[in-house]
Amino acid sequence: MALIGVSRYTGEGTFNVLENLLSYGYKGRIYPVNPSVSEILGMKTYSKVTEINEPVDLAVLTTPRVLVPSLLKECISSNIKSAIVVAQGFSDARDMEGRELQNELNSIVESKQIRVVGPNTFGTANVFINFSSSFVKIRMKRQPVGIICQTGVFFIGFSEMTFIGKGIDLGNACDIKFSDCLEYFEHDVETKVIALHIEGMQDTQGFINVCKRIAPKKAIIALKTGKSELAAKAVQSHTGSIAGKKEVWDIALKQSGVISVADLEELIDLTRAFCILPPMETPKVGVITITGGLGVMAIDACRNSVVRIDTLSPKTKSLLNAMSPVWLSVGNPVDIWPAMMTSQIPLRPLIDGLKILLSDSDIGAVLFIGAAFDEKWGSGICQLLTELATAYENKPLVCCIYGPYAAETVERLQSEGKVVGFATPERAMRALIRLYEYSELRKGL
Amino acid sequence: MALIGVSRYTGEGTFNVLENLLSYGYKGRIYPVNPSVSEILGMKTYSKVTEINEPVDLAVLTTPRVLVPSLLKECISSNIKSAIVVAQGFSDARDMEGRELQNELNSIVESKQIRVVGPNTFGTANVFINFSSSFVKIRMKRQPVGIICQTGVFFIGFSEMTFIGKGIDLGNACDIKFSDCLEYFEHDVETKVIALHIEGMQDTQGFINVCKRIAPKKAIIALKTGKSELAAKAVQSHTGSIAGKKEVWDIALKQSGVISVADLEELIDLTRAFCILPPMETPKVGVITITGGLGVMAIDACRNSVVRIDTLSPKTKSLLNAMSPVWLSVGNPVDIWPAMMTSQIPLRPLIDGLKILLSDSDIGAVLFIGAAFDEKWGSGICQLLTELATAYENKPLVCCIYGPYAAETVERLQSEGKVVGFATPERAMRALIRLYEYSELRKGL
Repeated sequence: MALIGVSRYTGEGTFNVLENLLSYGYKGRIYPVNPSVSEILGMKTYSKVTEINEPVDLAVLTTPRVLVPSLLKECISSNIKSAIVVAQGFSDARDMEGRELQNELNSIVESKQIRVVGPNTFGTANVFINFSSSFVKIRMKRQPVGIICQTGVFFIGFSEMTFIGKGIDLGNACDIKFSDCLEYFEHDVETKVIALHIEGMQDTQGFINVCKRIAPKKAIIALKTGKSELAAKAVQSHTGSIAGKKEVWDIALKQSGVISVADLEELIDLTRAFCILPPMETPKVGVITITGGLGVMAIDACRNSVVRIDTLSPKTKSLLNAMSPVWLSVGNPVDIWPAMMTSQIPLRPLIDGLKILLSDSDIGAVLFIGAAFDEKWGSGICQLLTELATAYENKPLVCCIYGPYAAETVERLQSEGKVVGFATPERAMRALIRLYEYSELRKGL
Repeated sequence: MALIGVSRYTGEGTFNVLENLLSYGYKGRIYPVNPSVSEILGMKTYSKVTEINEPVDLAVLTTPRVLVPSLLKECISSNIKSAIVVAQGFSDARDMEGRELQNELNSIVESKQIRVVGPNTFGTANVFINFSSSFVKIRMKRQPVGIICQTGVFFIGFSEMTFIGKGIDLGNACDIKFSDCLEYFEHDVETKVIALHIEGMQDTQGFINVCKRIAPKKAIIALKTGKSELAAKAVQSHTGSIAGKKEVWDIALKQSGVISVADLEELIDLTRAFCILPPMETPKVGVITITGGLGVMAIDACRNSVVRIDTLSPKTKSLLNAMSPVWLSVGNPVDIWPAMMTSQIPLRPLIDGLKILLSDSDIGAVLFIGAAFDEKWGSGICQLLTELATAYENKPLVCCIYGPYAAETVERLQSEGKVVGFATPERAMRALIRLYEYSELRKGL
């Protein structure tokens, strides 16, 4: 890999790609190209890419935009087949020079001598080989998620979710496009869930065709942004893309088998959930809660869905009633707190209750609502739920955790990789509803 | 205060109210009542409440349900004017005994000799005097929030929000009701925002009247749960309340000037926001972002609102253009990253840009979208935004923070008490939209 235009400045705040790569422990060969210095971080630099006398698979161009066309031509003469162009100011810019540079770039791409990711991009990342071309340092967390996006934000990630796994920031998408990347993830064994952040695209028909083929095999979850006229204008100045009409996109995504989400939070939640959960075979959710109040909210959340928190079978009901105080006739949600408070071992009724619901074939998924009162409760819940989910691996188990140690518990559960935790019952139910819809779609396709 | 039925068992997992109160540093006098032991935690116990020869303001009953009526009668003979009944199994139970106990309780309440909170409740909490009757230990965080709820969950709180401040868990609400508590918070100088979790109530007209009076003075934010038939059934078995029709509630809350929220997360977000933010005078939001991608999502979030992220005034635009690279014609959201990358001091354009938006009288609120790449960036953002919000204290300033240190940064901002942070742009915009609506309502009332 050649890093063309890599900065001589290193350390905090310099956003040095080379320094990042070395810190990840990337094992591939790196050729820094910078005509002003002879070495960076102890590595010999080249003044031109054409001086490198060994085969180069990829060139990452981090120079100002004006230099990009001539440098790409040099890459072509060095027989480099792929490049990432980081610079902004092409079709995303509003000045004449930007448009001219975009035209030059287009001619180079049309010559089909080199494939280009970008411009206006963080490039690509693959934590499985400790690689990222991003000038912002990313977290190297191995997870089965492939993201295709039009902003580097997804490389940096959010408190509740780092989207990489593997990622491609398409930026302005002058060459490499959504369908190319989808085809890569289709066959990639390390990727279980494909997340998309779409501002706009040209080849919608190709995109729909490839999605239709992949969707029954791997979940594709998409956030389409730029839904209003004002937002479409902002999309144009962000990545130079044409946003298109919201209504058309809604239908196209649905017909392609893509799971379309309303906002960033839903993209985060569903990506987390689909990474971990098995299919959900029936629409009834069994809920065990230590608080009736959040149980009611869980029911509210499935008001407009076929997924329901509905009456339990007589057998399950009588098993649960046997554990509870006489005055309590067990419903769904199952209020487990009274049983816990009257048991010698408070966690016993909880574990038994969860097992009863998990073994009920009438129930498609189980939701536990509980509190991480302190660190010990948090880690206890985490261990207990992870063990149960391992024992009942064909039934989705999710939870809603509140209390002071909720966020830590949810994060820990995600790392354990068996149970998905949420901050509110509504978010937990939304994920299950979409999981059921996808499981149905998968059967139908 | 008399703690009737306080457990002799102390330490982890015993949920001992007395132990909790001592750990908070509560300064009032406590009389533990437990006939089986002579002291608990070094404090003399009484075998009956009638043995206490000093005036008692409040009795907290933590006994099983069957003992409650006779104990309340003892409280009356001891001239105690208020009681909290913690036990479950009254109108929330489905057995005959529960119904009979509820009837006995009703007769006691109707005699008007004692006021009762509950049954089926955590009771009350007031962090300003280090007090909570809850058997689960709560966090003592001074904030200007009063919560009136029908579940103890709000005493325990969530990762992003502890709702207390001050709180009353009404439980089954056999006596003390929403309107009583609202009247308390109406005049309470330590309470700025009133949050409500409503499952159901009997005295709706009284509730509406008091809300109409308070709403123009203090924001009342309400989550009404139990929206479907199934959920209403769950409400019945949780607090014995009648949930009522969703449509009727929607209209009643709106007419009362109450800010009605869709789910728990919105209750959390708006309570956090209204605690801190000043009124929003005009519907235009100025956005500064280091990423165009999340800027587009912010615009998407105000698609169906009068609040808009719209064209900036010519003056503001020219001030911002002067700071940016020539190829960038500044829009709204303002993409500040190119200016930061070409500035000697990267934070300078960000600060200047925010000041320009904050001083523009055409702009009602400012949203900053940025990343906490590491701890230092997080604390830098926190300091910078808090200083700006202090300097421009009449203009709401919110932010959406992503990156690995996002959650910490958002929490820290909340403690500083000037700027409200959110995990996604959509949540930030939703809070501003509701803030503007309330500011308008306040003008109109």
